[in-house]
Amino acid sequence: MSFINDDFMLGSHSAAHLYHKHAEKMPIIDYHCHLSPRQIAENVQFRDITQLWLVDGCSGDHYKWRAMRANGVSEDYITGGTRSPWETFLKWAETMPYTMRNPLYHWSHLELMRAFGIDKVLNPKTAREIFEECNAKLSTEAFRGQALIRKFGVETLCTTDDPADDLKWHRMIAEHPFGVNVLPAWRPDKAMAIDDPAGYRSYMETLGESAGIVIRSYSDLMEALGRRHRYFEEAGCRLSDHGMDRFYACDYRESDIECIFRKVMDGRMADSREAEQLRSAFLHDMAVMDADSGWVQQFHVGPLRNNNSRMFAAAGPDTGFDSIGDSNIAVDGNRFLDRLDKEGKLAKTILYCLNPKDNEVMMSMAYNFNDGSVPGKMQFGAAWWFMDHEAGMRRQMECLSGMGLLSRFAGMLTDSRSFISYPRHEYFRRILCDMLGSDIETGRIPASEICRVEDMVEDISYRNARNYFGFPPPQSAENGLHGQSAA
Amino acid sequence: MSFINDDFMLGSHSAAHLYHKHAEKMPIIDYHCHLSPRQIAENVQFRDITQLWLVDGCSGDHYKWRAMRANGVSEDYITGGTRSPWETFLKWAETMPYTMRNPLYHWSHLELMRAFGIDKVLNPKTAREIFEECNAKLSTEAFRGQALIRKFGVETLCTTDDPADDLKWHRMIAEHPFGVNVLPAWRPDKAMAIDDPAGYRSYMETLGESAGIVIRSYSDLMEALGRRHRYFEEAGCRLSDHGMDRFYACDYRESDIECIFRKVMDGRMADSREAEQLRSAFLHDMAVMDADSGWVQQFHVGPLRNNNSRMFAAAGPDTGFDSIGDSNIAVDGNRFLDRLDKEGKLAKTILYCLNPKDNEVMMSMAYNFNDGSVPGKMQFGAAWWFMDHEAGMRRQMECLSGMGLLSRFAGMLTDSRSFISYPRHEYFRRILCDMLGSDIETGRIPASEICRVEDMVEDISYRNARNYFGFPPPQSAENGLHGQSAA
Amino acid sequence: MSFINDDFMLGSHSAAHLYHKHAEKMPIIDYHCHLSPRQIAENVQFRDITQLWLVDGCSGDHYKWRAMRANGVSEDYITGGTRSPWETFLKWAETMPYTMRNPLYHWSHLELMRAFGIDKVLNPKTAREIFEECNAKLSTEAFRGQALIRKFGVETLCTTDDPADDLKWHRMIAEHPFGVNVLPAWRPDKAMAIDDPAGYRSYMETLGESAGIVIRSYSDLMEALGRRHRYFEEAGCRLSDHGMDRFYACDYRESDIECIFRKVMDGRMADSREAEQLRSAFLHDMAVMDADSGWVQQFHVGPLRNNNSRMFAAAGPDTGFDSIGDSNIAVDGNRFLDRLDKEGKLAKTILYCLNPKDNEVMMSMAYNFNDGSVPGKMQFGAAWWFMDHEAGMRRQMECLSGMGLLSRFAGMLTDSRSFISYPRHEYFRRILCDMLGSDIETGRIPASEICRVEDMVEDISYRNARNYFGFPPPQSAENGLHGQSAA
Repeated sequence: MSFINDDFMLGSHSAAHLYHKHAEKMPIIDYHCHLSPRQIAENVQFRDITQLWLVDGCSGDHYKWRAMRANGVSEDYITGGTRSPWETFLKWAETMPYTMRNPLYHWSHLELMRAFGIDKVLNPKTAREIFEECNAKLSTEAFRGQALIRKFGVETLCTTDDPADDLKWHRMIAEHPFGVNVLPAWRPDKAMAIDDPAGYRSYMETLGESAGIVIRSYSDLMEALGRRHRYFEEAGCRLSDHGMDRFYACDYRESDIECIFRKVMDGRMADSREAEQLRSAFLHDMAVMDADSGWVQQFHVGPLRNNNSRMFAAAGPDTGFDSIGDSNIAVDGNRFLDRLDKEGKLAKTILYCLNPKDNEVMMSMAYNFNDGSVPGKMQFGAAWWFMDHEAGMRRQMECLSGMGLLSRFAGMLTDSRSFISYPRHEYFRRILCDMLGSDIETGRIPASEICRVEDMVEDISYRNARNYFGFPPPQSAENGLHGQSAA
Repeated sequence: MSFINDDFMLGSHSAAHLYHKHAEKMPIIDYHCHLSPRQIAENVQFRDITQLWLVDGCSGDHYKWRAMRANGVSEDYITGGTRSPWETFLKWAETMPYTMRNPLYHWSHLELMRAFGIDKVLNPKTAREIFEECNAKLSTEAFRGQALIRKFGVETLCTTDDPADDLKWHRMIAEHPFGVNVLPAWRPDKAMAIDDPAGYRSYMETLGESAGIVIRSYSDLMEALGRRHRYFEEAGCRLSDHGMDRFYACDYRESDIECIFRKVMDGRMADSREAEQLRSAFLHDMAVMDADSGWVQQFHVGPLRNNNSRMFAAAGPDTGFDSIGDSNIAVDGNRFLDRLDKEGKLAKTILYCLNPKDNEVMMSMAYNFNDGSVPGKMQFGAAWWFMDHEAGMRRQMECLSGMGLLSRFAGMLTDSRSFISYPRHEYFRRILCDMLGSDIETGRIPASEICRVEDMVEDISYRNARNYFGFPPPQSAENGLHGQSAA
Repeated sequence: MSFINDDFMLGSHSAAHLYHKHAEKMPIIDYHCHLSPRQIAENVQFRDITQLWLVDGCSGDHYKWRAMRANGVSEDYITGGTRSPWETFLKWAETMPYTMRNPLYHWSHLELMRAFGIDKVLNPKTAREIFEECNAKLSTEAFRGQALIRKFGVETLCTTDDPADDLKWHRMIAEHPFGVNVLPAWRPDKAMAIDDPAGYRSYMETLGESAGIVIRSYSDLMEALGRRHRYFEEAGCRLSDHGMDRFYACDYRESDIECIFRKVMDGRMADSREAEQLRSAFLHDMAVMDADSGWVQQFHVGPLRNNNSRMFAAAGPDTGFDSIGDSNIAVDGNRFLDRLDKEGKLAKTILYCLNPKDNEVMMSMAYNFNDGSVPGKMQFGAAWWFMDHEAGMRRQMECLSGMGLLSRFAGMLTDSRSFISYPRHEYFRRILCDMLGSDIETGRIPASEICRVEDMVEDISYRNARNYFGFPPPQSAENGLHGQSAA
């Protein structure tokens, strides 16, 4: 029997029914990912499976890199860039059998099966044939970027974009549609990155240019961001995202913020209280823009980044040396949301936490601010990054279920840099169906209510996100066919 | 098959045996709840199921309110008070199917079945008939407050009372017994609420009047509380309770406490260090009173309250805007208990934590102070509030089992404001039996020791609490019959 | 059927296959325990099961003590020392049935079965016969210390030793081998215990004597420890261990450290910042020694010790009054490791956390510093102390699996003071096999890869530790026979 067979992860008849009759059929809305808009627009053709899986020029897969380092693979096979694609792939194939019980083991085989139709277990013995079969397929039109995305039934995907970005690749995609909505998402992290005054000042120039403003003050910054926010909205953006170590919600005076901003622009470090104030102001003001535009705002809270300074110097950020922080979040998180709610400026919000010890805090915090205006206004977001595995997803959904309404969950996203990571939606749906199927078979959900459960599965897989974000309707298949050869 | 059938939640023959032959037969001791003594004494008759379930004049069900808000129900159906009972009930019935996997789904159907004998799944289609059947029954004698309590086999229940309370309703109940011990419990939170000096001073007047003392100093306060403590004891009180965001156990001098007390009574805010000191002194001195009286003391630690200031202004406290805090508790909690132990003043103690990340800390802290004087002297309390669901209860019991003696667990309480929430005891017992039944069937507990497991089930369901608190024996059935028509 | 039967804890055919054909056959490497080298060297003969299990002169079993206190057993049966061995044993036998679901229930019966061949459930009725059978056996040669260790298939064990220790018992064991490698491990906690200046100064004298140096400065201390480190290495030591409440990694100047050291040696308390600095320097400098020697360093992080001051005065440390702390660890832990890595001085490292809320933080922190030099260089250590039970082990392994490579796990250790606690390795292996067996039977691991899973089981049970620590090869059986009557 195939490893990735029909009933993979589905432990009961009810689970299989829910998955195959309901979850499986739903399109994918991948509302948060890190795909390169340029690669999509240019309809990227991958040289080989090593580029696609391991060492893409833009961004690699730091999940796999961490696993390889832990397996004793030296850095020259990873970020070193001195090994051939085959040598690197072989090291990954040697690591693969050691990843059993890690999500990489499931993800990789799901990807081989769903993207390439390869029903083999990857290990050093099968490495060469899999390498060659993948590479042969990748050289064809049917395996270029746009076709890969379409293959998985993606209806809409949102990239992650800097406010200074001109979104030209998104425009190009919109002008040459290929059957998938590709929308920008607003991620203004750099405009809060005051730890590096020189970099900050330089970014302000870039941002100012994009907005047609010389940014000399915090209010200039807000004006510039406001213009870009409208620009993003015109490009179809429906949501923002913030990456944060923790929440910021201290008291401040507007005049203080201007001083702190100027201090940083003058090349000096803000002290810790000043930094706290500027971040508090910035996050609040960004949230107001989102509320005014009717967007959804996302907060990804909790990483501790770039912990390995030797490797940071050698390989830069996002190369697999980030980890989970343990700051307290309850007081500041509630204060942050409360102020917005009091001002009538609380947008629909998704709160993600990286540290699973915070699940219950985050979940209860989110639900303090549901106001009945829209079902599921405040969301406790899907298990993220280090917790994006079966146990992590179950833990997030158990928390959400026990303390709130799983039925209103906006569901899964890939958060990925890869064109073939969409099986993570399948993986999520299988686990969701397994959970609900088990509830039915153990009588925790009455079998008489199966229709509601079927709807719940479809809602969480697709409809909740569609309704929540208000994305445009799917593009027609005809567009898709034209789009296939557009770029 | 009925949703709430005999084997609901019981996954094995052993589980069913333990539940039906042992757990099910045991009376209920509900040692911590928020029922209104007045409603019990007056033998309340509920207008309709909406009042009973959703918007009781005294206090509503903030669990249901949070679920309704998350489902997009606007506040006028909830705390707004502008909708008819049927309109509000229908909104709840519409929300119900979306609560699958939330404890509300199980609680509500257990309550319909056990209180009303209604074996239907609540949804918009069944809403009208269920509404009418419940209302018809609620208009009869058999569905007045006392009969409802008695129906569930409650032997003893403890309300939650302010030291200034004259306990006249408890006295009235004692004079007109209805078959259930209704005892007061001592909750002196207001005497520690120094964040609002005006309210504090006003409360000191009320408390002083009840004690026959003019409270001008901290030692007056202690004298007043001491008198009220004795008054409560005479009324049958056997336990105290404290609601706290975290523990307080800093050093202080008695003379400082007097100064801080006077400062607050003079209408000024204590600074953070002073507040810490006063709270440390107060909690310690309260604990000494409990020890001297041989009571059990309870500490409910961890909520972050009234996070939504807009709704706090509109609807007041306890309306569904509290959440889980994430303060550290290990150092102060241990210091607090150690000082009492050193002084020979450590009463029997139950420690509850709201944040499940604290389970292991709380559990290990409690067990630092068992002294062999009584089995289970130090208790890690049942899963509470946001964690009072199947996963939360299992997590609490797994923690207690793995690090201590589940056998000595004082067991379940409702913590509820509702006259029909007693099926939460049934729910707890089913989960307990399912857990132990599974242990037997997987050989983790030897089948030869079934008698001990049967006793354990009965102990945790009932006998441990009876022995631990030293409640009076159950009232005779005859009293109960007289009591039925007493008020 | 026996309680401790062949399939105990093994829930599937695959689990039973993995355990009986693979895990069970592997020798034990117990790389961290607290056995007394003297008792091993002298080939201790236990007076009775009470001494062995409950009140050994060297050190008792605080797990059992905590359980007895919670069960209402008074201290005179525990640390009081006024009761006969039979009286104490009977109290334990009375407590036993109340420990169901606690690991003590499984450990104790595994020990009765594996050490004594006693296939009975311990309770008051069986207490006398079990007491007598154990005692009779303990009086024979086959139940002396060395034979007990050998009976469990132990290949190597590491004790926990102070740098000032002359290791004469280890030398004696080496000179009279009994078939088991008994190696010292380096635990320099006392050289960081500056909270008690008088004790510290006295310890410095002891340490200085052992090293042949008068320790007057911090650099003298380092010189002394360096000599002892080499001495330990010559005695076969391959690993260090540090017991810490949290990590220490603040900035300091070398000159400050000398001042702080002299201040403490002069009998004064370091203030909190000074203490932080000295501990930061000390831990760093110790870690450098380990790196230079190619040792493995272990950090046991998180206990809050001696919380019960009354019992600390009466019974001393390590008597069952320690608990779990809740300090933050992410920032300092990463800083500590990063500095070492940057200096090229990061030894192979095992990080253990006591508070399971820290599992994910610890795991992600460890993996920030894998450098590909050796498989599994950075280890997230086995579930420890309060978490050393089935749920705790599963939680640790789920965390390790989901975020890293379970395959590279160095596996189990007893951390025990007892000569018969080796079945904890069996217990761990059964749980590991049950987990992997279930993965195979539910299709989460493809059945075609069974050989890899079999190897993984053997690796985690034995080979990973052997390769990781670089212990010497096992002693021959012949040596073992000679050794049996050596001491």
